[in-house]
Formats: sequence, C-alpha cells, structure tokens
Amino acid sequence: MAQSGAQSRAGSGRKTRIVMKFGGTSVANIERINAVAARVKREVDAGHEVAVVVSAMAGHTNQLVAWCSELSPMHDAREYDTVVAAGEQITAGLTAIALQAIGVNARSWLGWQIPLETNDAHGKARIMGIDTGAFEQRFAQGQVAVVAGFQGIGPDHRITTLGRGGSDTSAVALAAALKADRCDIFTDVDGVYTTDPRIVAKARKLDKVTYEEMLEMASLGAKVLQIRSVEMAMKHGVRVQVLSSFEDKPGTLVVNEDEIMEQELVSGIAYSRDEAKITLMRVPDRPGVAASIFGPLSDANINVDMIVQNVSEDGKNTDMTFTVSKGDFERAKQVLEGKKNSLNFHSLISDSNVVKVSVIGVGMRSHAGIAQRMFKALAEKGINIQVISTSEIKISVLVAEEYTELAVRALHTAYGLDAE
Amino acid sequence: MAQSGAQSRAGSGRKTRIVMKFGGTSVANIERINAVAARVKREVDAGHEVAVVVSAMAGHTNQLVAWCSELSPMHDAREYDTVVAAGEQITAGLTAIALQAIGVNARSWLGWQIPLETNDAHGKARIMGIDTGAFEQRFAQGQVAVVAGFQGIGPDHRITTLGRGGSDTSAVALAAALKADRCDIFTDVDGVYTTDPRIVAKARKLDKVTYEEMLEMASLGAKVLQIRSVEMAMKHGVRVQVLSSFEDKPGTLVVNEDEIMEQELVSGIAYSRDEAKITLMRVPDRPGVAASIFGPLSDANINVDMIVQNVSEDGKNTDMTFTVSKGDFERAKQVLEGKKNSLNFHSLISDSNVVKVSVIGVGMRSHAGIAQRMFKALAEKGINIQVISTSEIKISVLVAEEYTELAVRALHTAYGLDAE
Repeated sequence: MAQSGAQSRAGSGRKTRIVMKFGGTSVANIERINAVAARVKREVDAGHEVAVVVSAMAGHTNQLVAWCSELSPMHDAREYDTVVAAGEQITAGLTAIALQAIGVNARSWLGWQIPLETNDAHGKARIMGIDTGAFEQRFAQGQVAVVAGFQGIGPDHRITTLGRGGSDTSAVALAAALKADRCDIFTDVDGVYTTDPRIVAKARKLDKVTYEEMLEMASLGAKVLQIRSVEMAMKHGVRVQVLSSFEDKPGTLVVNEDEIMEQELVSGIAYSRDEAKITLMRVPDRPGVAASIFGPLSDANINVDMIVQNVSEDGKNTDMTFTVSKGDFERAKQVLEGKKNSLNFHSLISDSNVVKVSVIGVGMRSHAGIAQRMFKALAEKGINIQVISTSEIKISVLVAEEYTELAVRALHTAYGLDAE
Repeated sequence: MAQSGAQSRAGSGRKTRIVMKFGGTSVANIERINAVAARVKREVDAGHEVAVVVSAMAGHTNQLVAWCSELSPMHDAREYDTVVAAGEQITAGLTAIALQAIGVNARSWLGWQIPLETNDAHGKARIMGIDTGAFEQRFAQGQVAVVAGFQGIGPDHRITTLGRGGSDTSAVALAAALKADRCDIFTDVDGVYTTDPRIVAKARKLDKVTYEEMLEMASLGAKVLQIRSVEMAMKHGVRVQVLSSFEDKPGTLVVNEDEIMEQELVSGIAYSRDEAKITLMRVPDRPGVAASIFGPLSDANINVDMIVQNVSEDGKNTDMTFTVSKGDFERAKQVLEGKKNSLNFHSLISDSNVVKVSVIGVGMRSHAGIAQRMFKALAEKGINIQVISTSEIKISVLVAEEYTELAVRALHTAYGLDAE
C-alpha cells in the first residue's frame, strides 16, 4: 500500500519515502522541537527516507508581520519576505540540531539553498520547481533533510514566501517532487472530522477523505489544510495524512477517490458563519441583468458566493439574492446603492444573521435523494431554508444563524455520521 | 578631508561614500529602527552614497544562541549559523522598510546575496572577499544598501557567521571593499574616552585615536569596538568613527597616526579586573624552564598575559610570576600542581584580587620618562606595583584590586588627561 500513490516511485525494494510537516504549534518551543525530533527518529529507525518541513514557532510569524506593518502599512513585499522567512530559518536550524542531538544525521535547507524556485509574486509566490538532486544523494547516505517551509527563491535572487499557511504547500510540493510515498501533516488536531466536534459531540474522525471533499471542507471553513496544498496534492496524486503531533495515533488520509473502497454518501457537514445576504427587489428581468449587478461588485474586489434569482409573477421583474462575506457586507451595500438608478431595482434588503450549512460527499454524484434528505431533516426541525446552492459533491443552504448548531446536529444524524 | 583616508577612492568630484553600522541597541525596537532610518536619510539628503550594516535586535542573538545550546551543548556550528543569522536578516529587512517609508530608495542584502564570501570556519568565519558590483551600480541610482551584519556565505554554500560582535567587522570590511570615505559605528556610547567615565568623572571623549591605541584599549577591556574590526580597519586604512546613535554629535575618529597633528603622550588609561596572578617559587634556573612551564598551560588552551622572572640570589633558582584570566585561574593551578615533580618548583602561590592598570599612547614611543611618571604617581598614593609589563605603546602594572579606582584616577591626572 505504501507504493500505491499515483506518483510514488517505480520499482520494488526501494525504501519508503516520507515528507513530515510540522506546524507552528508543533515547534512552538524547545521541548516540542525535541518531541518533533523524536517523532522523526522513529521513521528513520524504521528504515524510511525522511524530509521534514517546519513552520515558524507559533506566534513568531505574526510578530514579524506586525513589525513590517508597524513600519509601513504598504511595505515592500520583497523586504516583508526577507523578514518573515527568518522564522522558518530558525526552526529549520533548531530542528536539525535536535535531530543530531539524538544521533540522527540531519541538515537544514533554506529555500534558496535547495533551490525551491518560485515566481516573483512576493508574499504569495507560486512554486515553479524544486531541485531534489541534493536530497536524493543525501537520502542514500541516510541523512534527513530539514526544510524551512513557506519560503523559496524568486527569479530576482531574493527570498519569496508562499502566503500564509504556505508550509503545507511547501510540504506537498516537496512530496510531489520527491515522489514521496506519503506526506504527513502534523498539526494540533488529530485528523479531519465529519463535522466540528465543538458542536457535535458525536463527530467522528474520518480514516480517509477524498481530495475533492477536503477542498470543499477547506473552502467552507474547516482550517485543517491550506486549499492550495490540497489542490497541489490532488494534481500530483500526493497521499496526504493529517495527524496530531501531540498524540501517537493515525490521522486522516487525503487520497484519490479510487482508494476509498466503501465511500459514504456524505463525508461531512461544514458550516460557515462568515456569510451575509443581500436581496435586490424587483430588478427589471432582462438579459444582462446579472452582469450589471455583479460587475460592479467584482470591480470592487467583492467575492459573491451563493446566488438565487426568482422569476417574478408578472414576468417583468425579478428578485436577486446573493451572499457575500461579512467583511465585504457594508461595502457591497454601498456599491449597489450607488448604482441604484442604473440597476433600477425597487429596494435592497439585507441580513447578516445567517449561516451557510453544507453537506459534502463525493458519493452524492451517483446517488439521488441526497438533497431531499437534507431538506427533510431541516424541515423536521422547523428550520427555514433561505437560499440553496449545489455543486457536484456539495449542497449548501443558508439558514438563520440561530439555527447553526441545531441544523448541523440534525444533518449529522440524518446522514448516519454519528459515532456509536 | 573626506578624501584623505589611505584607501579612499581616487578622483575628485565623486560623492562621499559612507558605511553606517548600527548595533543591537540601536535597532532594538520599531521606534529605534525608525530613528536609524531618519539618521540614514540625513546622509542621503546630503548627497552621500550610503551602505548601512545592522546587527540583530538587542537580546535576540542571545535568545537564538540559548535555544541552540539548550537543544545540544555541542551543536553543529553550521546549524547554529543558520539559526543566529536570522536575527540580522530580520533587522535588515525592517530597516529597508523603514527607509522606504520615508522616501529613501533602499533594499536589504543578506550575506549570501551580496555575496560576502568567508572561509568555512562556521561560528567564527573569516571574510575572504566581498563582491561590491551590485552596490556600485545601485549607488549610482541613489539606492541605499542595507546589509545584514555578522553573516556571510561559506564555500559549502551555507550561511556563516563572523563571531560575536561580527557586525563591526562586516561594516569595516564592507567599507574597505567599497573604498568608503568613512565607516561610522553607531553604538550606545558616544565615543572613546580617556578612561572609564564611571570611575573618573573628569574622563574626556577623544576626538581622535590611533588604530594602535584602539587595539590596545580593546584588548584591555574597553568594549567599544571588536578587536578584529580594528585590525581590519588598520590594515585597509578605513577611517572609523565611533559615535552615539542616540545623541546627535561627533564621536571619536579612529585613524592613522599621521592624521593626528598633536599627539598626546598618553591617550588613555585602561584597566582590567579579569586578572589572576600565579607565582612558582624557586624553580630551577636552567635553559628551557619557561617553555616547560608555559607549554602545559598552552596545551590546556590557557592564555598567559604578563610574565616576570626574577633571578634568585644563589643563581640556581628563580621565581616565575605570571597572570591568567580569572576564568582560567583554577584550571591553571591544577595543571601546574599536576606537573610539580617535573617542574621541580618549591611552592605555588596565587592571588586573584588583582587588577591590571595600563597607560596607552603612541606618543610614548618617542618620549622618555612616561613609565617613570606612572611609577611615581602610584607610589605617591602608596600603591605597590606587583608586576610590570610594557609594549611599544603601553605600560601595564598589576596592583591589588582594591586600588583600582585610586590608581586609574591618579594616572588620569598625572598624564594631564582630566577635563577642565
């Protein structure tokens, strides 16, 4: 099974190769860095080839970012990158020292030393290529590569960073380049759950979840993995495991659909409170009306999520309802009120006391009745659905915010996700 | 005068070029980094070409060193360098941001970007060369180079550091490579004094001091400049100015002797409490006795400072007195007691309640009676001299520690150094 990843290296008898990524809470102090080293040593002792990717100490990146912003709100992204990349540089060196202290052959690698080449989009750079030649050679000598996450080198010969949470992306990209058998993401949760355990006591940890489902969950607010890293894992077929750095037990594998034998219809229930609803009443129902509404919002860099258009009784007017994030709510209303004459709507009504609840599962692609079960479960609890939107593997509804917990629990039970 | 430095650039009409180095207390927080930027801007506005060298924020390097030591007392010097160099990386980026925020064209440079090439002696690397091509080009465009001090890149393509206080050395080396007209070292004192102002209220700040005198002062405990940086400045004829980053007034220029028109006989009085005295009584007086005593101490990596050998009355035995640093005192005694049979001395007596007081001045090379004035001044205060050692530009005496202040004040007055 270790060799079943789509991109794993050809040939039998080769050692299992693992990328292990540790987040900021996992390297937050010297004691935890020693624990990381001990965890890595176990994989080395098992005969595996190991690359370790580390984040900065928890809180350190925030401190560095705050200093940049304090000096200048509009600071040079190239200097920002130089400053914040220091956090991962420190933990990479410290982790190498910790490994050496327990007899593990290890050395640190900074983005520019590998090199991990990116484009020149400082602050949110994209990885263009990773030269793994030096790693291959040193793996053969039994050396562990400790890689500073989040950073690379741009075409301008300066340090770049990959955007917040970029160490996940570093790890998955490295796993793809090394054709690793697995990319273990160690974090402060022990895996991906069927829903938020803080709301549903019976939430279950998933043994496996598909890339597509993980992507939907990440988009819908589950902050386990950075979206970009999941996209990259899907594209390159990297088997990702999310697991706890504090507990010693298996986590959740993020894999291709064909690796999951018995796929549940629904894998999880997600919710997002970061929603606000706007309705334009009695907009003239003519071709191009949607473009005339959403064009100005797009120009103002406001992202629109769910959209519903009702046909009016007289066939001349329509009501247009959509959601934006709470942060864009006031600005969206101002933009639209400013266009009231040209858009020619009757009135604008809005509501920010809403929550988006979503049911996610690749199984729903081939099964009917999934949506119906959702609507029925909510109706039985007396919860009114305000807006519905669907994708191939997701159904989202907008309901009043006060029903958040009730709706999530009802759906978790309705789809048979409750732990026994 | 700006062009009078031995190595300053040929030709008239060229812009004055300055290297400005700011120590850890000068960049200790965002407010002070802004003050540094304002100070740099004044030189830029005056039409000068400027390179800035920064240390890490005060205390930060100590924190990083402590983490390395906590993980492993015998840590890999290459990883240590990777970790501790992050401190200067952070301040270099922040200082560039601060300069840009007030309209100064600036960019940060890390050791590996310049490159500032060193040998592979990680943790205490020596500078092999600095490629200043990129700087020359950017000076012409009016850009300030903000250089991370203390760091370089070794032949192994890894970060090296120059040893504690290495940012002074970075600054002087950069000034030499750039043929800068001046290297300003901004620190938390406002210059070099005739003696420690905490002991002598009438201590005067020197306008100028020679490299040789500065070297003696640095060796004798005045912690204004790192010894290596003074040696390098002397070798390359770099005009160094030591001045305060908190007060706006001229500091002390460290220059060649020929730049000082009226050289005082004595420039300063230094003292060091880090001395301990050992006497071996009645050692056989035969050829090679000194080698047999100091060989074992050298093998134990113990540095011996002042040495006095008295001829005994019978001509067969001699008493050998010398000093070591207090940190080596106990170990030195153990080494010698262990060799008692082969060295064949009668007894070992020791005293760590001693202080070394020194009179420094290049003027004494050409004047007689300097030493005599010292001995007379001390005798008048009833201070007994235990050991004397002299160099071309320095006379040091060892006296009982309790006389430290009295001796320093008496000598400061005796050589006419008191401020009026």
